[in-house]
Amino acid sequence: MSLINTQVKPFKATAYHNGKFVDLTEASLKGKWSVFVFYPADFTFVCPTELEDLANNYAEFAKLGVEVYGISTDTHFAHKAWHDTSDAIKKVQYPLVGDPTGLLARNFEVMIEEEGLALRGTFVINPEGQIKVLEVHDNGIGRDATELLRKVKAAQYVASHPGEVCPAKWTEGAATLKPSLDLVGKI
Amino acid sequence: MSLINTQVKPFKATAYHNGKFVDLTEASLKGKWSVFVFYPADFTFVCPTELEDLANNYAEFAKLGVEVYGISTDTHFAHKAWHDTSDAIKKVQYPLVGDPTGLLARNFEVMIEEEGLALRGTFVINPEGQIKVLEVHDNGIGRDATELLRKVKAAQYVASHPGEVCPAKWTEGAATLKPSLDLVGKI
Amino acid sequence: MSLINTQVKPFKATAYHNGKFVDLTEASLKGKWSVFVFYPADFTFVCPTELEDLANNYAEFAKLGVEVYGISTDTHFAHKAWHDTSDAIKKVQYPLVGDPTGLLARNFEVMIEEEGLALRGTFVINPEGQIKVLEVHDNGIGRDATELLRKVKAAQYVASHPGEVCPAKWTEGAATLKPSLDLVGKI
Amino acid sequence: MSLINTQVKPFKATAYHNGKFVDLTEASLKGKWSVFVFYPADFTFVCPTELEDLANNYAEFAKLGVEVYGISTDTHFAHKAWHDTSDAIKKVQYPLVGDPTGLLARNFEVMIEEEGLALRGTFVINPEGQIKVLEVHDNGIGRDATELLRKVKAAQYVASHPGEVCPAKWTEGAATLKPSLDLVGKI
Amino acid sequence: MSLINTQVKPFKATAYHNGKFVDLTEASLKGKWSVFVFYPADFTFVCPTELEDLANNYAEFAKLGVEVYGISTDTHFAHKAWHDTSDAIKKVQYPLVGDPTGLLARNFEVMIEEEGLALRGTFVINPEGQIKVLEVHDNGIGRDATELLRKVKAAQYVASHPGEVCPAKWTEGAATLKPSLDLVGKI
Amino acid sequence: MSLINTQVKPFKATAYHNGKFVDLTEASLKGKWSVFVFYPADFTFVCPTELEDLANNYAEFAKLGVEVYGISTDTHFAHKAWHDTSDAIKKVQYPLVGDPTGLLARNFEVMIEEEGLALRGTFVINPEGQIKVLEVHDNGIGRDATELLRKVKAAQYVASHPGEVCPAKWTEGAATLKPSLDLVGKI
Amino acid sequence: MSLINTQVKPFKATAYHNGKFVDLTEASLKGKWSVFVFYPADFTFVCPTELEDLANNYAEFAKLGVEVYGISTDTHFAHKAWHDTSDAIKKVQYPLVGDPTGLLARNFEVMIEEEGLALRGTFVINPEGQIKVLEVHDNGIGRDATELLRKVKAAQYVASHPGEVCPAKWTEGAATLKPSLDLVGKI
Amino acid sequence: MSLINTQVKPFKATAYHNGKFVDLTEASLKGKWSVFVFYPADFTFVCPTELEDLANNYAEFAKLGVEVYGISTDTHFAHKAWHDTSDAIKKVQYPLVGDPTGLLARNFEVMIEEEGLALRGTFVINPEGQIKVLEVHDNGIGRDATELLRKVKAAQYVASHPGEVCPAKWTEGAATLKPSLDLVGKI
Amino acid sequence: MSLINTQVKPFKATAYHNGKFVDLTEASLKGKWSVFVFYPADFTFVCPTELEDLANNYAEFAKLGVEVYGISTDTHFAHKAWHDTSDAIKKVQYPLVGDPTGLLARNFEVMIEEEGLALRGTFVINPEGQIKVLEVHDNGIGRDATELLRKVKAAQYVASHPGEVCPAKWTEGAATLKPSLDLVGKI
Amino acid sequence: MSLINTQVKPFKATAYHNGKFVDLTEASLKGKWSVFVFYPADFTFVCPTELEDLANNYAEFAKLGVEVYGISTDTHFAHKAWHDTSDAIKKVQYPLVGDPTGLLARNFEVMIEEEGLALRGTFVINPEGQIKVLEVHDNGIGRDATELLRKVKAAQYVASHPGEVCPAKWTEGAATLKPSLDLVGKI
Repeated sequence: MSLINTQVKPFKATAYHNGKFVDLTEASLKGKWSVFVFYPADFTFVCPTELEDLANNYAEFAKLGVEVYGISTDTHFAHKAWHDTSDAIKKVQYPLVGDPTGLLARNFEVMIEEEGLALRGTFVINPEGQIKVLEVHDNGIGRDATELLRKVKAAQYVASHPGEVCPAKWTEGAATLKPSLDLVGKI
Repeated sequence: MSLINTQVKPFKATAYHNGKFVDLTEASLKGKWSVFVFYPADFTFVCPTELEDLANNYAEFAKLGVEVYGISTDTHFAHKAWHDTSDAIKKVQYPLVGDPTGLLARNFEVMIEEEGLALRGTFVINPEGQIKVLEVHDNGIGRDATELLRKVKAAQYVASHPGEVCPAKWTEGAATLKPSLDLVGKI
Repeated sequence: MSLINTQVKPFKATAYHNGKFVDLTEASLKGKWSVFVFYPADFTFVCPTELEDLANNYAEFAKLGVEVYGISTDTHFAHKAWHDTSDAIKKVQYPLVGDPTGLLARNFEVMIEEEGLALRGTFVINPEGQIKVLEVHDNGIGRDATELLRKVKAAQYVASHPGEVCPAKWTEGAATLKPSLDLVGKI
Repeated sequence: MSLINTQVKPFKATAYHNGKFVDLTEASLKGKWSVFVFYPADFTFVCPTELEDLANNYAEFAKLGVEVYGISTDTHFAHKAWHDTSDAIKKVQYPLVGDPTGLLARNFEVMIEEEGLALRGTFVINPEGQIKVLEVHDNGIGRDATELLRKVKAAQYVASHPGEVCPAKWTEGAATLKPSLDLVGKI
Repeated sequence: MSLINTQVKPFKATAYHNGKFVDLTEASLKGKWSVFVFYPADFTFVCPTELEDLANNYAEFAKLGVEVYGISTDTHFAHKAWHDTSDAIKKVQYPLVGDPTGLLARNFEVMIEEEGLALRGTFVINPEGQIKVLEVHDNGIGRDATELLRKVKAAQYVASHPGEVCPAKWTEGAATLKPSLDLVGKI
Repeated sequence: MSLINTQVKPFKATAYHNGKFVDLTEASLKGKWSVFVFYPADFTFVCPTELEDLANNYAEFAKLGVEVYGISTDTHFAHKAWHDTSDAIKKVQYPLVGDPTGLLARNFEVMIEEEGLALRGTFVINPEGQIKVLEVHDNGIGRDATELLRKVKAAQYVASHPGEVCPAKWTEGAATLKPSLDLVGKI
Repeated sequence: MSLINTQVKPFKATAYHNGKFVDLTEASLKGKWSVFVFYPADFTFVCPTELEDLANNYAEFAKLGVEVYGISTDTHFAHKAWHDTSDAIKKVQYPLVGDPTGLLARNFEVMIEEEGLALRGTFVINPEGQIKVLEVHDNGIGRDATELLRKVKAAQYVASHPGEVCPAKWTEGAATLKPSLDLVGKI
Repeated sequence: MSLINTQVKPFKATAYHNGKFVDLTEASLKGKWSVFVFYPADFTFVCPTELEDLANNYAEFAKLGVEVYGISTDTHFAHKAWHDTSDAIKKVQYPLVGDPTGLLARNFEVMIEEEGLALRGTFVINPEGQIKVLEVHDNGIGRDATELLRKVKAAQYVASHPGEVCPAKWTEGAATLKPSLDLVGKI
Repeated sequence: MSLINTQVKPFKATAYHNGKFVDLTEASLKGKWSVFVFYPADFTFVCPTELEDLANNYAEFAKLGVEVYGISTDTHFAHKAWHDTSDAIKKVQYPLVGDPTGLLARNFEVMIEEEGLALRGTFVINPEGQIKVLEVHDNGIGRDATELLRKVKAAQYVASHPGEVCPAKWTEGAATLKPSLDLVGKI
Repeated sequence: MSLINTQVKPFKATAYHNGKFVDLTEASLKGKWSVFVFYPADFTFVCPTELEDLANNYAEFAKLGVEVYGISTDTHFAHKAWHDTSDAIKKVQYPLVGDPTGLLARNFEVMIEEEGLALRGTFVINPEGQIKVLEVHDNGIGRDATELLRKVKAAQYVASHPGEVCPAKWTEGAATLKPSLDLVGKI
């Protein structure tokens, strides 16, 4: 069964965020849009470029009222140390969540059991805590923050305009479709 | 468990393709890259714009040696009728696969059981029949063929350049990363 | 066990009916006679002739207070598109029910599991929601609406004349039999 | 699951046929078309009229190479006694099969368990022993031998003309349909 | 475990009795002695001689306040037809019970499952509905009504004379035994 | 299920017979007819009269080639002691079988579990070890050896005259019936 | 687990005692000491000598307020007959308990299942119904009533002198031991 | 089920014997008679008097070819220390077996689970390793070595004189009984 | 799962302590620190040197408010006897706990099942009954009481100084560490 | 059950060692002594002092032929980064093993499941791969490398001097004990 439209399962985690250790639960997600960005491991190769790409676009996510969460099976201690020592990660202003038990990675079905590491999974979660978009890459294939932004905007548009749907390659400001019996079989 | 890196499960299906009904199995995927594009239903709203978007980019997919498959739980008869009558779908040159038993939708975990329809799921499959990228949208949120093209190219690059990985927002021709001990903790 | 005399199981479905999409449940059947006519798929060969034959006799069914339902595992979207484009189906004034989950086809035991399509099954249902007559053909063999009319009339006659039974080849107006001890072993 | 296209299950039974007791098994059906006609009980009301109707049409069934079998849960002894004493049943030239264990009634899913009697079920079986048409009436509703003849002919026509199907209300000599891609969505 | 001293299990059946069809249940047995006489099938060989033998002794059973029930897995319709046509059975004044479901034959453990017919079982039942004597013969071996009468009388005597027992070959009027400590080891 | 026509189950037992202790198994029964006569307990009331009645008729059983076995759940020691001290039992020339484990009483379904004693059960067993007649009385009701002799003779007659059956109240020398189609429904 | 210190399980039995048949249950044991003496079978060899030995010592058991029970799987009828006819058993004034169901033999774990007979088991039971001493011999080895008397006295002494224990070979009147810390490791 | 006549189960144990630690298994028992004497614990009260009583009679056991084994759940280390320090135990010349795992106590069903100590159980074992006599006392009640000697002698006599049995209170040299049919019911 | 931080499971035991037998349960541990010292067996080699080493350091444990418990699967009787006779053990002033059932050894997972003896396990338990330090040696390897003292002190220090942790080789009076975000990744 | 004397279970892991990533399995441990030192997490407080303490004593471990392994549930990437940036960890010359799946922590029963981190567990493993000493501290309590060295030496001494055991507080060069019967109960 797909995770789409399911509720985020209960969890407890500690994140490193702006020089502090903060506790998070599924309740922390309620009331605003969230993006969960899983990556395999701190101190590795593709990961910092992806996290940096998100950091560079963070202002725009913020403008949309979206919080971004970077998540790996490392501890929050390792996240702080990485943040302290990596030029790329230093730019990250969003929370880096420690998941050493793998609870989150398993809840979102991105755990590679034989390695104890997460796949590159991205999840857009609405303010009610439901997953609306998911995307998982095999670990060598990097993600693109601007694609993610487009999806977030489409998801937000649909959520706030009941009765409209976003057609293919929809971007902000483009026309949407209003489902009606007349359109059936006519496009 | 994630579907990433799993083998496509055995299946039998009939597709409408270039004026003919053709039989497909998991063996039909071997030897070239494939993209599986699930959508909810023929004769509906978002679907034709997505399929048309793919049709408009089909030449490029073809250049990359990629076959595209549009899949819904409709029959191949309905696919032909839609192709005959819809201006948007008339452009589609790739196979439209009938999945009335829902076998494919269930194998790729995109079946909405209470509706009998598929979610908007996209899957990039390598020539060995393994899923390398997956993406699923809640049904109101359209997809973008150019984003899909970028992912396919990254997946192909990584597959043909063992020992390199694509960093975030990698596009064709951009530099990749070569993992090495020296990079650990240095980016 | 036979379905004869069992209650129609609960269901939810959407039908295309006279230019509208309407919702149906088992409750919609209560209070009048119904005929359920399953067929394999929209846009195929035998199906439209059967549905057209029923359409041609629909006035007579209506006179008997009987509603006819055409049912396939296609969606109601496909039903509308078929109705829009087929000369035969255009004549259909009764509801065409979408059953993409196959719930109805399985409830009436006419699902061909390996195809995801229904067999040609016909069911006469009384105003209490009980199945009184059933008939299933292998898919190449067409049905005859006048035969169905005869059976509906016999079923209605027996229902409204307790203590009488319809002998073989009974047609409207013909004599019936009144069971009595005297007749035992005497015919 | 429907019985349509399933193989007749193994059975052993004794029938009264032309003044003799004869043994029957599923092997007795191989090589010619058969019609199984279940009825509730010897010495009752509707039953003899149905069996007589079949007897009156028996010559035509025979011309089509079809054997007819009347079956109830009575013994073959009761069948003989009924044949000896009933004017209607005296006309029957086809086998009357005793099914006191109810094995046949259960195999064909027409047993009324709380009565130990069969429903009015009719089954057309091809020379390979597969059920092609089935029809079951609640017990007050009589059958019509001429309708049965039409169905047998349609089933035989389809069997001997691969690639053709009988449209609705087809009768012997009428045009059939040849499925082809061109017809899809065109009727 | 033996059926002796067990309660007759609940049942429902229809019997042919003196030109009427009558309903019977286990409650019908309460308050008087009953004899259940199972036989294989109507219209066969040994059966009518046994039923005739009972009919010839019926006056005496009646004098003892005993009702006799003839039971086979035939229907009550067949029982009536047999009664109408057989000279032997015409004499039967006691109920002939139809057991087409085999419920009674199974409750009294005389069903031959592979034939759907009952063995020749005889059961003497007291006014409380408890089985006091049972006797079963393989089907070729006929019973004797006078032996049955002797057993019924012995059972009735013991029931109405608590503290006495009938010795071997006891017949009406003969001396009985009164159990006492003194007799232990002394006969 | 009835014990009629089942094979006697394997057993081992010791009997007191003509001043000796002898071992018996199911193999001891092969090749001649046997009668098993269960009774509740040595040194009690009805029992010796039944065993004496059999002793008085033993010559006739012997002439028919039948061995009689008296069986209770007492030991063979108690049987000898009873034989030594009871005038009635002194006459017994047939084996008295000890069944202290209750194996035989349970095999023949005559064990009263809450008392550890057998019911008055009688079984006629053919030379192949199959039970052909059974009779069980509640414990106060005595049996009659002459009735048993009649049944044994009928069973032997049927066994040695295949194709004939003994009608009701058949006794040695009386006419039997030969089943044939002509008799069906004619008696 | 040992039976020592367990409660005698509920039972119902009939005994022959002083010319009467009396009913016994576990409640009959409450309030006085009991000795249960199992033996294999009435009318055998070792058994009467053991029962006679107990009979000869019965006055002394009585003086100690102890009831003795002789128990075998024979019936109380057999016990009476044995008492009537055996010179040894005539002396027995204590109850001889019939255990034809083997309930007691199984409760005290002395049943030889393949023979249906009890082993030579002896059990000393206190007035609360708890087993304090047990002794079982293979069946050829006889018991000695004087040894049993010694054990009963020791058990009674310990029961009535809390805080003392009987050393080895203790007999009535001999010194006992009072457990104390000082004695630990000092004897 | 009784342990009488069962085979001693496999075991491994270490004993203190004549100044040495020796290993024992069930094989050590084969070829001579053994007596197993369980007691609760070293350094306690009743135990040394029982072990001393056996020591005082050990010469006679030896003459009979019997080995005695004292067994508790203490270790063989504790046995040696007790032997070194207790005047009573110093006399013991037979093996003192350590059973700290409780395997032997459980095999002989004398373990008090809530204390981890054995009951006072005595077992006579024949040279084939089968238990012939068992005796268990509640822990306050001491045993008597001379009673044990009598039982051993009786067991040996019966073993070496097949066809004879020891009557009650048999002691060495006394007459035995020879079972024969003539004695049945005559003692 | 580790025993660290689990609650001591309920137990009952008897110890020899300062010339008395005293009862202990898990409740006896509440309110002060405890050390459980398991050893294999009384009267053996390494054990007394370890117990003596603890005895020599007992004053210091006492000063820290710690009770020491020596535990083996011997009985408290054996403990007393050992204390009486061994020069080394005579010095022991702390309780020697008897564990003949092995309950404690199993609760602390130090039972060697095939020997019935405990491994050399040491456990430091806080006043709430939780295990804070554990140490188990294969049986040839002796322990050192001064190492144990160091661990007890560290455990007590941490317990009484929330927010501090003892670094490696910490001894009483040495500096501790206060965890703070600033230290993360900085040592 | 204790882990003492069990075999190290199969595992696969990657360690950071002297500037390289090296693969380890249980086979890597064979042929020399190993010490496994689990700690909770990289970049935390107590951990570096413990690892530094071991580093300072590493020369002595090396002299004894012992390899030391530091293990946490962090990745080998994090280990390298920590080694690169921490002054304390820079001194570590022994392998730091990554255990992100927790396989090793679970095999050695030191996983804190709700945190995904290991307890402070230390294990001495012999060249055959068997655990001889184990020690686990609650996480605030630091370990001491010199205590570990003493234990390793004792374990090695016992391994190389069969028949000797190390008494309490044994240190290199001190006398050992030779177990003999004479010592039992004498220390």
